[in-house]
This record gives sequence, structure tokens and C-alpha cells, in this order.
Amino acid sequence: MVYEMAMPRLKAPQRKEQILAVATKIFARMGYNGATTHAIADAAGVTEPILYRHFKGKQELFVAIARQMSRQTIKHWEEMIEDIDNPVDELRVIARGFPRHLRGLADAYHVIHGALATSRDRKVVAVMKEHYSQIEKFFCDIIKRGQESGAFRRDVDCRMPAWQLIHMGIGYAMIALNLSQFDQFSVTEAVEAVIAGIKSKK
Amino acid sequence: MVYEMAMPRLKAPQRKEQILAVATKIFARMGYNGATTHAIADAAGVTEPILYRHFKGKQELFVAIARQMSRQTIKHWEEMIEDIDNPVDELRVIARGFPRHLRGLADAYHVIHGALATSRDRKVVAVMKEHYSQIEKFFCDIIKRGQESGAFRRDVDCRMPAWQLIHMGIGYAMIALNLSQFDQFSVTEAVEAVIAGIKSKK
Repeated sequence: MVYEMAMPRLKAPQRKEQILAVATKIFARMGYNGATTHAIADAAGVTEPILYRHFKGKQELFVAIARQMSRQTIKHWEEMIEDIDNPVDELRVIARGFPRHLRGLADAYHVIHGALATSRDRKVVAVMKEHYSQIEKFFCDIIKRGQESGAFRRDVDCRMPAWQLIHMGIGYAMIALNLSQFDQFSVTEAVEAVIAGIKSKK
Repeated sequence: MVYEMAMPRLKAPQRKEQILAVATKIFARMGYNGATTHAIADAAGVTEPILYRHFKGKQELFVAIARQMSRQTIKHWEEMIEDIDNPVDELRVIARGFPRHLRGLADAYHVIHGALATSRDRKVVAVMKEHYSQIEKFFCDIIKRGQESGAFRRDVDCRMPAWQLIHMGIGYAMIALNLSQFDQFSVTEAVEAVIAGIKSKK
């Protein structure tokens, strides 16, 4: 009781937010399989019953982290391209900003990739599919606009270059974040190769 | 004693091999952080002291799995390209065979990518760097031969396309193995894009 009076209690939405931020760090450090709600509650300075008031368990925490990270990624990219008027430059700007974007969301990416590589939990797998579908849609929208404007070939299914970009992004992130090999050049060059592959031949 | 007489004991090299095969499955299922030497010894049907006679611990098991997997990957690719006489087709054949290659070494890839995404163990990180350096060298050798023959531009540092291929391979493997989205088309198309990026302009 003394503690509760000394430390003002957070309101429910702030508490939920704070638990999520702490859970992201714990998952990033211990992996999805290794993290426990006990460790998360402990690091957040709450009891497990308090944690359970906000999240049903580990799985629900993971889902919240993954969805938050999807939203942040897409919002960030939409802001980056809103003043750019052609799809080729949109892809270039996203590529150029990717190392910095990764650094900013490093913990969340560790969580996502760690779960992707090691968890066989069906809900986790479903949420990962949802995440990549949203990224696919984001890139497809850019590519379709390029096809309408004539910049890109119309005989290409937008999902093909979209998945090339996703595969490269995951691979780059795995190496950059985990082996500390950030390398601006290889991202921009790789995206140039994808662009060259779908550019209209004029 | 009765058991030892009923089940003929494996000789040391076979036992070591068997423990390694079992450890690969356990690491793949439980992740590097989640796996214990206790669980591995148990699944291999040996006591922990017997396991320790062959491997100093979890870290040494991981190192052995990663090195075996590097050797198998490079040997497999060398065999695939030994009868092919030009670097462009060598890259294409490796791309075409990649989904099948992944399926064959699925457990080992789960181990490698799980450790890459979640382990901060310095030895694990060092062994992963060693693994990717060998893959980089393998691709660089192909690209350099293409530069000598005139198929590829000579102003390109071979490490750039080599890392594009590595990033794409990791990303593709993460999606294919963990979300069951094997997709022959996207690998071959992506490798075509890398090839197009370094082809000589004639």
C-alpha cells in the first residue's frame, strides 16, 4: 500500500502501453519460447494478475507487439512517401531509409523474427502471415500505381516484386540486427535490381 | 547392464553423429535458448555425462551443427554446378534447386535462423559470421569467374551481389520454412534480377 501511494498508479491505457513496451524488450532478449509472463510482469513492476487484466497471456502480448509493429512500419513508410510523386522514387526512399527504420524498431524486429524462426504456435504463425500480407499490400499498391502510370510493366503480378522486397528486407534485417552488419549500399542496390526487373522497356 | 547388452553400443564416431542429429531436431523444435543438454541427452537415449564426452555443451553442439550445415550446403551446390560451364547458369541452377535444398535441410536451417534471430551468445554470433563468410566466398567465386569470362561487369565488387543473394536466401527461407510458403517462382525471379543487375551491357 505504501508503494502504491508513493508511485502514482498508471491509468489503464498507459499501463497497457507500458507493459507492451516492456514485453517487447523481454521477448527480444529471451525469444518467444524463452519469455514468461512472470518475467514480463516483473520487469514491468506489476504482479501477474495485473498483467493478465490487460493481456490474456504471452500469445496475446505477442499479437499486440506484432500488430503495433505492422502499423508503425506502414505508417512510417506512408509518411516517407507522401510527398513523392512517382513509384520508383517511393521504393528508393523506403530502401534508403530501411537501415535507420530497422534501428528504430530493433527490439520489435527481434521479436518478430525470433518468433518467425522458432515458434510453431498457430496463432503466432497466423499473425505473422497477417503482418506480411499487409506489407505485401503496401508494396503492391506502389507497384500498381507504377503500372498505371506506365513506369512498370503491366504483365507482372505485383506480388512477385513485393515478395522479392519482403524476402530481401527480412534477410537484410536478420544480418544487420544480429551480426551488426548494417550496410546501406546493399539495400539500395538490391532494390534497384528489383526496380530494374519490373521497369517498362522503352 | 542388461540394456547395454540388449542394445549394441554405438562406437564413438557414430554416437557423436547420432547425438548431433538428435540435437539438430531439439534445437529446431525448442530454439537455441530453449534447448537444454538434458533434453538432447534424453532424446538421444544417453546420459548427460556421455553427451559431455562428445560435446562440451550446448554451444559446442550448435557450432558443430552450423559447421556441418555450411559444409553440406556448399558441397551440395558444388555438385549441382560441377557440370555447368557458365556462371549465369550456375546461379540459376542453385536458385531453381533452393526450395528443395531448404526442405532437405529444414531442421538445420531452423536451428541456424532461430539462433541468428534470438541468441546473443558471442560464440554463436561468431559462428554465424563464419557461415555467411563461406557462402559469400562461394558466390564471389562464381561472380569472379563471370567477370573474367566477360559475362558480368568488372566494376562490381562481387560481395555486393553475393550479399543480395544471401539476404534473399535468408528471407525466402524464413518465409518458406516457417509460414509454409514455398514458392519456386519468387526465388528464380529474384536471382534473375540480381543477374540482370551485374550482367555486362553488350
